[in-house]
Amino acid sequence: MTHAREMLDTHPGTALMDADALIECIEACFDCTQTCTSCADACLGEGMVEHMRRCVTMCLNCSDVCATTGRVVTRQTESEPAMVRAALQACAEACRLCGEECERHATEMDMEHCRVCAEACRRCEEACNRALSAVGA
Amino acid sequence: MTHAREMLDTHPGTALMDADALIECIEACFDCTQTCTSCADACLGEGMVEHMRRCVTMCLNCSDVCATTGRVVTRQTESEPAMVRAALQACAEACRLCGEECERHATEMDMEHCRVCAEACRRCEEACNRALSAVGA
Amino acid sequence: MTHAREMLDTHPGTALMDADALIECIEACFDCTQTCTSCADACLGEGMVEHMRRCVTMCLNCSDVCATTGRVVTRQTESEPAMVRAALQACAEACRLCGEECERHATEMDMEHCRVCAEACRRCEEACNRALSAVGA
Amino acid sequence: MTHAREMLDTHPGTALMDADALIECIEACFDCTQTCTSCADACLGEGMVEHMRRCVTMCLNCSDVCATTGRVVTRQTESEPAMVRAALQACAEACRLCGEECERHATEMDMEHCRVCAEACRRCEEACNRALSAVGA
Repeated sequence: MTHAREMLDTHPGTALMDADALIECIEACFDCTQTCTSCADACLGEGMVEHMRRCVTMCLNCSDVCATTGRVVTRQTESEPAMVRAALQACAEACRLCGEECERHATEMDMEHCRVCAEACRRCEEACNRALSAVGA
Repeated sequence: MTHAREMLDTHPGTALMDADALIECIEACFDCTQTCTSCADACLGEGMVEHMRRCVTMCLNCSDVCATTGRVVTRQTESEPAMVRAALQACAEACRLCGEECERHATEMDMEHCRVCAEACRRCEEACNRALSAVGA
Repeated sequence: MTHAREMLDTHPGTALMDADALIECIEACFDCTQTCTSCADACLGEGMVEHMRRCVTMCLNCSDVCATTGRVVTRQTESEPAMVRAALQACAEACRLCGEECERHATEMDMEHCRVCAEACRRCEEACNRALSAVGA
Repeated sequence: MTHAREMLDTHPGTALMDADALIECIEACFDCTQTCTSCADACLGEGMVEHMRRCVTMCLNCSDVCATTGRVVTRQTESEPAMVRAALQACAEACRLCGEECERHATEMDMEHCRVCAEACRRCEEACNRALSAVGA
């Protein structure tokens, strides 16, 4: 579906970290940026939008952080571990906060899109934490 | 792998266009933004980087346009066809130009990452054109 | 305030278009991406958020398109006129649509942040159209 | 030049932090994202591009992190201090690393665009650190 692994395999350099941890993290970040954009949009379309404000802001922020982190982690040429760590830490935190907020809406208000988004956030948080271990945080 | 379909299925609104064309376009845009970021980075890492300048710029631009278009197409709440069309047209053009440049490097210089990127660009260009038909361009 | 002109003056290459039109366009795009992010956020915070949905979506889309266009127009190394034109056309259209929506909210609902945002959108639309003329659309 | 202050003044909510620190940070982030995109592009156009790889990657990463942080800091509706802190910390680190690399090129290779970019990075790093103090890091 994605070309992340093929691109890494044909890159002229050597990856900063274990390839599996890297690809899992890249794919999770790009999936989470799309899912959070979609959840913010779905929350905005809900009848009770006045109760969804915090979820919209969380999702918009998380989508932006994931997009940036997916790119930072993708770049392998002269990759700087301190930069990669800083991005991964911010992304793990954004995904943790957004995942908790979405989970709350899924449970309390039975919002299905929030349940899907919470899953994408958790997967991305875990992938960022594994990548942090792999890069030597 | 991605959550695009689940998010669309649980959205409170009605999609602007045929769901299959929409999801194919969303997934192609987010895959292409990652692949182009990766190809720009791989080109930068090549020994003959002085011959890769046009490819780097094309890939950086295409990555940005795909990221934006993937988000515009994702948003279904009060979606405006004229906005969606403008983004899809720019994205189809960016992918066409970047795909041609990458294909040229793949053929003339045997750059494997450019071959993979050319494929991602062509897939995204076609998905944008199908989405344009679906939205009524 | 911004460093756009100093960066262009110290660039090793030759600009694709007239420097004044280019810098005006770059500054307008980055200002408009910030203003539209802020207007989407302000609309979300309004008591009558259920009447602001279309404005939020317009502003989010316009913010993304302006961010991408500001970068595409900034890049001068091996700049491709067809790419620059495609981005500028999408951006002029996004700013026109968003500016009209914001102007409507400013007039009908007396939303001051929408009035400021409409002004930023109009300025950016005009700057994109001038840049289109300068690049030879 | 920018509309950041007017947008904040007309926002329906209360800012998360001191308005001056907030606006300075927003403007520095959006200026730095443009400047870093421009410096990556200028480095790519240099005759000795093979010596500029690390600067290109640093600038691309810093540009993405600044763009995301500028948006996260802009959003005031249901703003979450933990999210804002995480973004500001990553941004201060990205600007510190990129500013040092650019300063090195400015000094050792007399690259004027790197000198301008180093200045934008330092200004943004300081603005992020002041915003961190204001938000209670």
